[in-house]
Amino acid sequence: MSDVIYDVVVLGGGAGGVPAAIRAAQLGGRVAIIEAGEFGGLCMNRGCIPFCHMAEVSRIHGSLALGKEMGLDVSGVSLNYATFRKRQDELIRFMREGVIGMLNKRKVRIIQGKGKLVGRGKVEVKGDIISYRNLILATGAKWLKPDIPGMDLEDVVTTDYLLETESLPKRVLLFGTSPWLLEIAQFLHHFGSKVILATDGKSILSAENKTIRTRLAKAMKNQGIGISSRAQILDLSKKKDGLHVLLKVKEKEDTVVVDRLVMLKRGAALDGLGLSTVGLGGQGEYLKINDRMQTAVDNIYAIGDITRPEERHYSHAASAGGMIAAENAMGLQERCFDPRTVARIVFTQPQVACVGLTEKEAKKAGHEVMVGAAPLSMNPSGMILSQTMGLVELVSEKKYGEILGVHMVGDGVAEMIGQGILAMQMELTLEELARATFPHPTLSESLPEAARQAMGLPIYLP
Amino acid sequence: MSDVIYDVVVLGGGAGGVPAAIRAAQLGGRVAIIEAGEFGGLCMNRGCIPFCHMAEVSRIHGSLALGKEMGLDVSGVSLNYATFRKRQDELIRFMREGVIGMLNKRKVRIIQGKGKLVGRGKVEVKGDIISYRNLILATGAKWLKPDIPGMDLEDVVTTDYLLETESLPKRVLLFGTSPWLLEIAQFLHHFGSKVILATDGKSILSAENKTIRTRLAKAMKNQGIGISSRAQILDLSKKKDGLHVLLKVKEKEDTVVVDRLVMLKRGAALDGLGLSTVGLGGQGEYLKINDRMQTAVDNIYAIGDITRPEERHYSHAASAGGMIAAENAMGLQERCFDPRTVARIVFTQPQVACVGLTEKEAKKAGHEVMVGAAPLSMNPSGMILSQTMGLVELVSEKKYGEILGVHMVGDGVAEMIGQGILAMQMELTLEELARATFPHPTLSESLPEAARQAMGLPIYLP
Repeated sequence: MSDVIYDVVVLGGGAGGVPAAIRAAQLGGRVAIIEAGEFGGLCMNRGCIPFCHMAEVSRIHGSLALGKEMGLDVSGVSLNYATFRKRQDELIRFMREGVIGMLNKRKVRIIQGKGKLVGRGKVEVKGDIISYRNLILATGAKWLKPDIPGMDLEDVVTTDYLLETESLPKRVLLFGTSPWLLEIAQFLHHFGSKVILATDGKSILSAENKTIRTRLAKAMKNQGIGISSRAQILDLSKKKDGLHVLLKVKEKEDTVVVDRLVMLKRGAALDGLGLSTVGLGGQGEYLKINDRMQTAVDNIYAIGDITRPEERHYSHAASAGGMIAAENAMGLQERCFDPRTVARIVFTQPQVACVGLTEKEAKKAGHEVMVGAAPLSMNPSGMILSQTMGLVELVSEKKYGEILGVHMVGDGVAEMIGQGILAMQMELTLEELARATFPHPTLSESLPEAARQAMGLPIYLP
Repeated sequence: MSDVIYDVVVLGGGAGGVPAAIRAAQLGGRVAIIEAGEFGGLCMNRGCIPFCHMAEVSRIHGSLALGKEMGLDVSGVSLNYATFRKRQDELIRFMREGVIGMLNKRKVRIIQGKGKLVGRGKVEVKGDIISYRNLILATGAKWLKPDIPGMDLEDVVTTDYLLETESLPKRVLLFGTSPWLLEIAQFLHHFGSKVILATDGKSILSAENKTIRTRLAKAMKNQGIGISSRAQILDLSKKKDGLHVLLKVKEKEDTVVVDRLVMLKRGAALDGLGLSTVGLGGQGEYLKINDRMQTAVDNIYAIGDITRPEERHYSHAASAGGMIAAENAMGLQERCFDPRTVARIVFTQPQVACVGLTEKEAKKAGHEVMVGAAPLSMNPSGMILSQTMGLVELVSEKKYGEILGVHMVGDGVAEMIGQGILAMQMELTLEELARATFPHPTLSESLPEAARQAMGLPIYLP
């Protein structure tokens, strides 16, 4: 096989690598994809998909309260984790087989094994050398464990534990800044765990608009989930009654006793890749790329989790980056990645979905900023759905009214943010959005109303 | 009061009239609004809002099946109509008070009573004469009863009956072409009624793409709802065991015995308006307007249900038209209504949401048509949600790839169609939509995938 030179070799078969390989093959390339673990990567096997599945059962369970108000009486509600796990495992297996099927259909060569760079143009997998004209690095993330006394105790786990256990822990502390932890907190809460969520950030979702994150935090607290921000873990010790976690929260120390501490922190999976053999060693915690997804080496691209700090690790960014990398590798006219239109989504109840600049970021970027907001509690569909915490907020610049950011909290906003994404992509103005005829009664109507509110001309708001 | 001349008088305080009055007041106009019945009109009091509320309890009840697959066990499920009605009545009252509050806040004079045109520039209400510079007619719809033997029997009702009754009928025949009947059929089915839906159309939602309407019909039939198309009611008679309805379905006659026959057909509420006093008499079943919402008389505008045939009676079209009429009446630079971007929505399970041209309409309009489709059963979020019937379909023209129509069936598509509406409004091409980075995992991802499929370049589809 040593005489084959692939147009594109993709290292990593996850959310970024798979569309990269397919896109390159679509463009006529001879393509190979190398995966050490399971196709579908972190997102499909141990991230977005299982967590979204968890969020969905949480949502249905949570909607029983609204149902009751509407006359739907149920008695004897119980949640069976074994049934849930079975469906989840089958779902993921089905999706994984789908991915492999698609790769085969596009005639992408599938190579199972750990790939290692061995000089320019060459990757070694289980002793075989694979030659490439272009390489797309998409090895994703690894879990990081901070250096805290007791961190190696058995009861300190990652989220992987929740996907493998037969029964869920009764008392859980979740620690980290990942939005996934918010989804997991609600899931565990619905399944009967006592949940505390602690973050070292100044709040949950600390980078988002205050209006948005405080509404989610309030909703979660109302649901009975403990939230501690500016928290640090000082010490861990296993005792008879459980895992003792010494937490420092805003200068105050306190011991929390739980059955499991779930840590979630991702780092770029760069170890053992052989980056130095191509001159990409010593770049730090993640790989640096330009907006064409190119590393410092012309024919080596990188996408997804290995390229960006933790807070921007969205699998749709990996997919979009993957397709762009493939197009550039295949010599299509120059394709660039637009990070402005990558939405930040949390599948909580209420959901959070934001795209573009926050108010603070817009001001920092030098814009004279106009903000418009429409609470979903004043939207007809929002009233039907008792969306007391919901809000749609627009950040725009004053001169042309161009929309710079769209921020939403509310049930179902993950499907509404596409409107914000298109607004950003098409450089929509407040005036244009205000003129959009959105259907009635929907939550989406709050988008044009927020635009009108920003201009001081709301129709349905005080 | 005879010396006041209003800049704008709005006749009718429904989904069209209220935003028209508020917009005119916002633009500095002296405005009065005249309403004979209840503010909020058909939509709020006897249409969209109660039917959407019904759809929501149907959705929650229906989602228990998915919940069960996910490990959510419930026993003793029952639906209490009295509780549902109480919430609904309170909700509508609250919204109605909100509308009146907004009109007061904008200093719109509220006149309660039946308005009648009495020559140019004048409307009479309870003997008072109200003078106007511009008039916006927004009196909405009335129910129509076809001329069939037995149509006056007590058991033949309109949908209003369902909003007033204390207990729901056990056996119901719904007859008509209105999308509302589809929502009501599912609602009654969830509340335990045996439901047959009959339409004189060639199918339910006969104007929509076949792919879309057949999926909804199949889903409803699977749920246990009888559907008859090309149906006619020949005769009605009351007997001991119920109302006997002689139906002719595709040349075959059959008698159906039910407790209630619900008829739903709307006509423009033109009666007794005094249209002939301003030269607008004899226009037929509804008022003709131009795209500025102007009637044949320059300073008289008309919006909403009184202006259009039944199938396009969407309250968001009335609202949009109302704002445009107000702007034109107040002398803003010429504002036009764009019917292309008015979405057609049905709050069924699965929902239907379509905007723009169907494939047939696009071909008829002379376009060389490209169609792209992405089934939600192959979308990751769709798999999580068991969206077996879901589909996103795009109709575009070949030359520039401009998107001409967006068609969806699936749970939650009513909140997704805003993406289609913006695509139409901004004249988005397939290429541009294909490049949109939509969040993962969401149903919305099927939009760019359908765009890629139309171009023959799908990433995640076979």
